[in-house]
Amino acid sequence: MVDEWKENRSLGDLGEARILSRLAGYGALDGRVTCGIGDDCAVCRTENPAVDQVLTSDATIEGIHFRSDEDPVRVGRKAVSRVLSDIASMGASPEWVLINVVAPKEMKLRSLEAIYEGIQERLETFGGVLVGGDLTEGGPLALHIFASGSLPHGTAILRSGAADGDLIWSTGKLGGSAAGKHLDFIPRVREGIWLRDSGWVHAMTDISDGLAIDLKHLTEDQALGASVEVSVLEAMSSVDQALYDGEDFELLFTTSADVEKIVQREWKNTFAEPLWKIGSVVKSTHEIHLHDKGTYRLLSDGGLHHF
Amino acid sequence: MVDEWKENRSLGDLGEARILSRLAGYGALDGRVTCGIGDDCAVCRTENPAVDQVLTSDATIEGIHFRSDEDPVRVGRKAVSRVLSDIASMGASPEWVLINVVAPKEMKLRSLEAIYEGIQERLETFGGVLVGGDLTEGGPLALHIFASGSLPHGTAILRSGAADGDLIWSTGKLGGSAAGKHLDFIPRVREGIWLRDSGWVHAMTDISDGLAIDLKHLTEDQALGASVEVSVLEAMSSVDQALYDGEDFELLFTTSADVEKIVQREWKNTFAEPLWKIGSVVKSTHEIHLHDKGTYRLLSDGGLHHF
Repeated sequence: MVDEWKENRSLGDLGEARILSRLAGYGALDGRVTCGIGDDCAVCRTENPAVDQVLTSDATIEGIHFRSDEDPVRVGRKAVSRVLSDIASMGASPEWVLINVVAPKEMKLRSLEAIYEGIQERLETFGGVLVGGDLTEGGPLALHIFASGSLPHGTAILRSGAADGDLIWSTGKLGGSAAGKHLDFIPRVREGIWLRDSGWVHAMTDISDGLAIDLKHLTEDQALGASVEVSVLEAMSSVDQALYDGEDFELLFTTSADVEKIVQREWKNTFAEPLWKIGSVVKSTHEIHLHDKGTYRLLSDGGLHHF
Repeated sequence: MVDEWKENRSLGDLGEARILSRLAGYGALDGRVTCGIGDDCAVCRTENPAVDQVLTSDATIEGIHFRSDEDPVRVGRKAVSRVLSDIASMGASPEWVLINVVAPKEMKLRSLEAIYEGIQERLETFGGVLVGGDLTEGGPLALHIFASGSLPHGTAILRSGAADGDLIWSTGKLGGSAAGKHLDFIPRVREGIWLRDSGWVHAMTDISDGLAIDLKHLTEDQALGASVEVSVLEAMSSVDQALYDGEDFELLFTTSADVEKIVQREWKNTFAEPLWKIGSVVKSTHEIHLHDKGTYRLLSDGGLHHF
């Protein structure tokens, strides 16, 4: 491996994935951490052996995650729903929330309060209690939100855990989030808890970077790949939109093929919106294949790059 | 009260204290929250009735909390020590830490890693395990750090709780932090746990805004005031420096006057650095008096304003 340290390279040269893999080394090893840096949340033991705590944080920043002229209520909704979605993707129930705000001094109090209204609306609906935070003058407007959640010990659903032959599911349509869904999406907290309770789910994440990247997150630890049905993506939006738009914040999960019928039936009995079966886990290492009327096409690398 | 909403006022017009008091209203009431927005940490019940969890977050931002040319190891130290100091001021033991970084793409990986080395150094010394975070491209360089801690149920030391006649103590010298202490200060985690265990402490906070402001934080909930010994401040640095410099990050606490001798003796038996007795809590509402050779002088309002 190239030694980036000696080469004195910048973050922009390296790209997010390589930076994060370096920084992950600073996460201390501790027997109470079941799952550290790299999943949607960390999973930690608590003083109660029957309960685990999950922890996550996200940044929502003007000019990157929302436009400067956006409705502040929607900005607040998005900022907190992103961490709620992380917690949902472990199958946990939201617990405590803290918000660090960086805001320009020209900002109107009523705009800041509107952000908090959006946050409060989501917390009232999906759980989680705002207990603290910090306010600093500056710009651009930034919301750094931290949240914890809880769930029975040993039941957190990790990104790793998918098996060859598993079915791949999404809790909703993918693609086209830029039209507004990226601000108003529903964090799938109820679905995540239900899925964890079901015992059927092998691996789960939420779709933030786009299906093409998040499918890799779901399969790469096992050196597996995925086959995706083109007809399903076309029914959702378009193949490209479904693969690359990102910020859908649907839950992406795998189950054994044996439980296909019961998953579909019980889902339908519980939730109004349909569950989408989008493909299956395959042996082809780190590859995504598009399955279209009997033919397979290998997907080349692509997608979002934060750095 | 003036309705800031209707007046359409900006954050800069209002000042931090009024903004925070408005935002505190968005902290939901919840029976599991012993202490919400307004103290150094929130204090929350856990699934184990014998243990409470404390939660806090702080922002450390280039140009506000450190200079652009500062040694990144020291920046990391400061950023994480601020949250460790919050946890210390409740008397809790650090537990989980998450870091949101906003960094320009021109930043060198080795600078970012140096920040993490400063963070790791402090966590190894004082406890706390880095379990997650987020990385976003942008500027100025910002570190938003979230931390939790734990302590026996019902033992968290709050800012409120001071009584008329209490002695006021500081765990170290105040003033002159700009010379470097604001970056390299020692979070008083061990002292905080020891003080909580002692059972002697009525109220505690850490000195971040400066003694003049933090003394008010320690007395205003009880509508009390404080009398401060000028000779003690002069022995520390100067009266003005000790009152207004801020960022000392010493623990400021009160005890009954009855335990003065035992506090001094047991402290000396435990810690190498001296404990400073700086004054006492008095009935004079919201006022700070400077006591100098038999005369009292009333301190007018002053200190840092973040907005």
